[in-house]
Amino acid sequence: MTRAEVTEKIVATKLAKQLKWADIATEMGSAKEWVTAALLGQMQMSEEEASKAAQIFDLSREEAAWLTTVPYRGGLGQTVPTDALLYRFYELIQVYGPSIKALIEEEFGDGIMSAIDFSMDIDRQADPKGDRVVVVLNGKFLPYKRY
Amino acid sequence: MTRAEVTEKIVATKLAKQLKWADIATEMGSAKEWVTAALLGQMQMSEEEASKAAQIFDLSREEAAWLTTVPYRGGLGQTVPTDALLYRFYELIQVYGPSIKALIEEEFGDGIMSAIDFSMDIDRQADPKGDRVVVVLNGKFLPYKRY
Amino acid sequence: MTRAEVTEKIVATKLAKQLKWADIATEMGSAKEWVTAALLGQMQMSEEEASKAAQIFDLSREEAAWLTTVPYRGGLGQTVPTDALLYRFYELIQVYGPSIKALIEEEFGDGIMSAIDFSMDIDRQADPKGDRVVVVLNGKFLPYKRY
Amino acid sequence: MTRAEVTEKIVATKLAKQLKWADIATEMGSAKEWVTAALLGQMQMSEEEASKAAQIFDLSREEAAWLTTVPYRGGLGQTVPTDALLYRFYELIQVYGPSIKALIEEEFGDGIMSAIDFSMDIDRQADPKGDRVVVVLNGKFLPYKRY
Amino acid sequence: MTRAEVTEKIVATKLAKQLKWADIATEMGSAKEWVTAALLGQMQMSEEEASKAAQIFDLSREEAAWLTTVPYRGGLGQTVPTDALLYRFYELIQVYGPSIKALIEEEFGDGIMSAIDFSMDIDRQADPKGDRVVVVLNGKFLPYKRY
Amino acid sequence: MTRAEVTEKIVATKLAKQLKWADIATEMGSAKEWVTAALLGQMQMSEEEASKAAQIFDLSREEAAWLTTVPYRGGLGQTVPTDALLYRFYELIQVYGPSIKALIEEEFGDGIMSAIDFSMDIDRQADPKGDRVVVVLNGKFLPYKRY
Amino acid sequence: MTRAEVTEKIVATKLAKQLKWADIATEMGSAKEWVTAALLGQMQMSEEEASKAAQIFDLSREEAAWLTTVPYRGGLGQTVPTDALLYRFYELIQVYGPSIKALIEEEFGDGIMSAIDFSMDIDRQADPKGDRVVVVLNGKFLPYKRY
Amino acid sequence: MTRAEVTEKIVATKLAKQLKWADIATEMGSAKEWVTAALLGQMQMSEEEASKAAQIFDLSREEAAWLTTVPYRGGLGQTVPTDALLYRFYELIQVYGPSIKALIEEEFGDGIMSAIDFSMDIDRQADPKGDRVVVVLNGKFLPYKRY
Amino acid sequence: MTRAEVTEKIVATKLAKQLKWADIATEMGSAKEWVTAALLGQMQMSEEEASKAAQIFDLSREEAAWLTTVPYRGGLGQTVPTDALLYRFYELIQVYGPSIKALIEEEFGDGIMSAIDFSMDIDRQADPKGDRVVVVLNGKFLPYKRY
Amino acid sequence: MTRAEVTEKIVATKLAKQLKWADIATEMGSAKEWVTAALLGQMQMSEEEASKAAQIFDLSREEAAWLTTVPYRGGLGQTVPTDALLYRFYELIQVYGPSIKALIEEEFGDGIMSAIDFSMDIDRQADPKGDRVVVVLNGKFLPYKRY
Repeated sequence: MTRAEVTEKIVATKLAKQLKWADIATEMGSAKEWVTAALLGQMQMSEEEASKAAQIFDLSREEAAWLTTVPYRGGLGQTVPTDALLYRFYELIQVYGPSIKALIEEEFGDGIMSAIDFSMDIDRQADPKGDRVVVVLNGKFLPYKRY
Repeated sequence: MTRAEVTEKIVATKLAKQLKWADIATEMGSAKEWVTAALLGQMQMSEEEASKAAQIFDLSREEAAWLTTVPYRGGLGQTVPTDALLYRFYELIQVYGPSIKALIEEEFGDGIMSAIDFSMDIDRQADPKGDRVVVVLNGKFLPYKRY
Repeated sequence: MTRAEVTEKIVATKLAKQLKWADIATEMGSAKEWVTAALLGQMQMSEEEASKAAQIFDLSREEAAWLTTVPYRGGLGQTVPTDALLYRFYELIQVYGPSIKALIEEEFGDGIMSAIDFSMDIDRQADPKGDRVVVVLNGKFLPYKRY
Repeated sequence: MTRAEVTEKIVATKLAKQLKWADIATEMGSAKEWVTAALLGQMQMSEEEASKAAQIFDLSREEAAWLTTVPYRGGLGQTVPTDALLYRFYELIQVYGPSIKALIEEEFGDGIMSAIDFSMDIDRQADPKGDRVVVVLNGKFLPYKRY
Repeated sequence: MTRAEVTEKIVATKLAKQLKWADIATEMGSAKEWVTAALLGQMQMSEEEASKAAQIFDLSREEAAWLTTVPYRGGLGQTVPTDALLYRFYELIQVYGPSIKALIEEEFGDGIMSAIDFSMDIDRQADPKGDRVVVVLNGKFLPYKRY
Repeated sequence: MTRAEVTEKIVATKLAKQLKWADIATEMGSAKEWVTAALLGQMQMSEEEASKAAQIFDLSREEAAWLTTVPYRGGLGQTVPTDALLYRFYELIQVYGPSIKALIEEEFGDGIMSAIDFSMDIDRQADPKGDRVVVVLNGKFLPYKRY
Repeated sequence: MTRAEVTEKIVATKLAKQLKWADIATEMGSAKEWVTAALLGQMQMSEEEASKAAQIFDLSREEAAWLTTVPYRGGLGQTVPTDALLYRFYELIQVYGPSIKALIEEEFGDGIMSAIDFSMDIDRQADPKGDRVVVVLNGKFLPYKRY
Repeated sequence: MTRAEVTEKIVATKLAKQLKWADIATEMGSAKEWVTAALLGQMQMSEEEASKAAQIFDLSREEAAWLTTVPYRGGLGQTVPTDALLYRFYELIQVYGPSIKALIEEEFGDGIMSAIDFSMDIDRQADPKGDRVVVVLNGKFLPYKRY
Repeated sequence: MTRAEVTEKIVATKLAKQLKWADIATEMGSAKEWVTAALLGQMQMSEEEASKAAQIFDLSREEAAWLTTVPYRGGLGQTVPTDALLYRFYELIQVYGPSIKALIEEEFGDGIMSAIDFSMDIDRQADPKGDRVVVVLNGKFLPYKRY
Repeated sequence: MTRAEVTEKIVATKLAKQLKWADIATEMGSAKEWVTAALLGQMQMSEEEASKAAQIFDLSREEAAWLTTVPYRGGLGQTVPTDALLYRFYELIQVYGPSIKALIEEEFGDGIMSAIDFSMDIDRQADPKGDRVVVVLNGKFLPYKRY
């Protein structure tokens, strides 16, 4: 058994049971962004979380154990995503990348926005001209060490 | 002359004059994220904007004219960015991509967050454990047309 | 079970039953371009559509459920298609790409033709020198937002 | 001197003289899609056309001669275009490719839509919800020879 | 079942029965180049041909049906072939490509040699210094359409 | 000075003087396929040939010397050619590759068609339905050595 | 069954029976370099050789038959080998490639060292500072044909 | 000035002066394989060697100094060489790679043939059926350290 | 059975039995870095080590035998690792690569740090601002041979 | 002027003046690893440091200013380095990558070794069997945030 098989089972069970990620997250007690990432094989769960997940998705003991391991991260299986929704995010890096770099460095100095000490928030913004997706990326600034 | 040469001149002039993107944006009267992208060759300026930019960066008439053309977008020159700050954004797509897709589709249905009817906001969030970078992506939801 | 397996079954059943995409589309009540794309795993069906499809292709309940999910789009499995028919479309982007960009931008300003608010029409045009394939791409123009 | 340099000069002169592709095409007496492609270095002009182009763009005799040669086709310089407008066309091949193949073959049998005996038409379709871009691809069907 | 599995069975059966492509082609009544390509999954057979093939290779009805479908062309599974015999053909394009282009265009004008209205002939030429392989490529010239 | 610069000069001079490859080859006394390849930087000329070429193309002594060196072969500068005429040859390898391999090996045993002890012939075949391009590839069969 | 499966079985059986390539080669009566290559699926065996191999590796009749077919050559499955031992050979081409080309051409004129009429010899050279690996590559020089 | 420019000058001067690598090596007092590699920018010369090279190739003091630096190795500028002579060496790794690995490891145990403590020898072997190129690779065996 | 399957079983068994690499290494009597690499299929074990490993991981005789073979090295299955922890090491080569090269060559002369006569040490360094990972790479310097 | 040109000038001046990185670092008052990286265009200098560097390398005011900007990181210009010394580090990631990941996560939990809050130390270890290169990587452990 591999972790990919566990992820595949979770996705199939969610479809069969008609579950929603947001409801699952509420039940698990963490943010929907983190819980979804963990269930899709990109974050490590604690044993309690894994056992809640096991109940929700009818996982065996061995399947649940996989959820408590640190995953090999990288969930696309493609260098550039072909899916339209995901490609738009890649396109933003192509179009805005140098500007993001310039503005963060102007404000904070030389360093990066951490992708580890990081959280994400995805929300709907009502708009008469068509609702909008708002994605908030929030990461600690880490200055390059000088030595 | 190509647009890349205009961008190179803007960057060199900014360094020589010790300007800041945020101040330039205030002077230009638009968001710093949009103005920086335009000056780095990824957005199209109006003629007035181009002529303000010409004053700030000592551009010739021909150089300013380039700023009013629609650019060939894609500012990295690399499929996967090697720069550490930019790579973290690419990594977020690798790690969170499938979750972003799952959550937007659960909330909105089948469609995408537009990268065209889109704005971005980069800010500092004070934090005693180390200030944080907050990047807000805001795009119109576009549902897939059925026919 | 994965969506790719459902697609494979649909293709095999179509072959075994000697069905035609155009007839299936008529039965499903939508354009043949959209229906074919949906059955080949690139569009999301409603539950009623999925259940019509289930009847036509002898799909199980679980297989039909997959048709109602949003697919991970990108149906080639190749960056550049090796198939001769498909390659010609790729070649058109290589040969006409910069002209398409120039002419749309000249007519509409800075923006794109949407691939989401989009429909396609494939038809035969009788011609004594050999009939012609006519493919009509119809997408909403989306102007780049300024902010 | 290379053809790429001639193309670059044409683009710069067009910007300086504030010309429009559609007007140039009318003056040249061919479709705007073909003329633009030729001026961007993807089609071969006759000597008369090249000499009209020379007048419009102030080309030297040698520069004009380049327009009468058969170009090495492929105008992107990228396997997958990063520009947003052009990428949408690539995305359409990814999403609709297998459907286009299936529908053309169902209607015409085994063969391809020619990209050589081919014409293209780009137009605006007025629409109260936002005007639409209509791109018509028209190519002769070529059946695979059996022998 | 996929077409690749049918091809694999044909190759294995040919090996087990010690058949020759040339003999099979004679029996099928078409050129050995076309028949081999069809049996290796790159050309579409008629129903009669598929049923002759079914007899020769002990194919089931379903397997034979696959031979009557239009294949997804591209038989290498590699961008550049590693096999020594095939690589030499790729090398010829690298070495002679620009010359082939120059000479065809000098003789015929702007256009291509069709790979669709095309036939191929592979023969042995006796030679005291070592026999030679002669491959004749024969394709209709297609001029680029002007419009 | 590099060989690429010599090739560029030859191409430009040919355009300026309105020369034809076939005529140049007659003057040089070798096949047009070989002479064109040599002038495009893919074959090594003798000193006499280089000096004839120098006369035809107004080459300096140093430029002519480059023609007598063994070139670094590979004239495309692309792994897969984007040019339509050349791509068709690449496509033939994709479509017919496995058949070419099967038929040569059936006739000759294990080995290859040499791309070194090789000649090529490009001709026009008159045809009422449209003239045809005939390309004859002629290479010595080289059997794999057993030891 | 595919040839890759036969190779896999040979490797597993060799491990289980604790055989040595050198001993197998002696038993087969050919050089160890050629026999190993043949057993690893890169050379074609005669029927007698295949049947000796069948005895040694307990191959079925069908498995042995695969050894008598001409393989699709290319045994790495990677463009650049990641294995340390094999990478060193790739590195030698990177470091010495241009020198090898220069020296062979200086000695022999324009042409290549055949990889088909070729043999290889791998030996140990005793050395007090540490024994050395000596690999002798021996290929017929093939001059480029002029025509 | 970069090292690539020094290499380019050396190659051009050698052509102009009609020198031979073998003679230069004799004059320099080292093996022709090493000297050629050094002059083509892949090995580091001592100061005396660089100054002999300066005399032979009319190098300036600064140009000679570059020859005494450690080069950034990798002389192809391509992952897979397109040049026919060099490609054959790459092909040998594809065809014989796994056999080379198997035989070295069988003889020496786990380890590699060093590409650093390494020498190469290129020679002509007279043969009535056509002279042969003999390339001897000689590298110290380095066993993997266990700890 | 392949070595990859043995590795997969070892990883699954370790998870099921809740073992730690450090404890296993102590039991095996070698450094944890070497033992982990060997168990993950990148180093060759002796027969005694393989039989200890067989006890710990409940391996069959055949599975244990695979551990005594020399592996085909390269454990990522990706050219650039997508996993965040591993990518940071790749990033260090991108950022510090030229400096590492410059400093080793300044200290030692032309040569390399061996990756074969090599050991690694991974440790925790306590730090009030957050503990640190210390990775020590220790390889023999190998000077380039001159000849 | 671009930063790459400043780096090139620094390297050339160092060669001309026969300077050593270690001495320059002592003069600059920081670690040789950091100073070398900064001078090779991968770290940001303070104004004082840049002005010391200007003295050492005879930089103009504008050149010195470039040293105070945040660089676009990634110093190889290759995905996989061809240089032998650098490749060995890449090889270590291929061979030891999964072990490094396993051992850091076993000791610290889910997270990474920072490449930003990071320092490096390169030293010589005397050894009678040949001196050794010791590279110490020291980075803060950053745990993945849960939310």
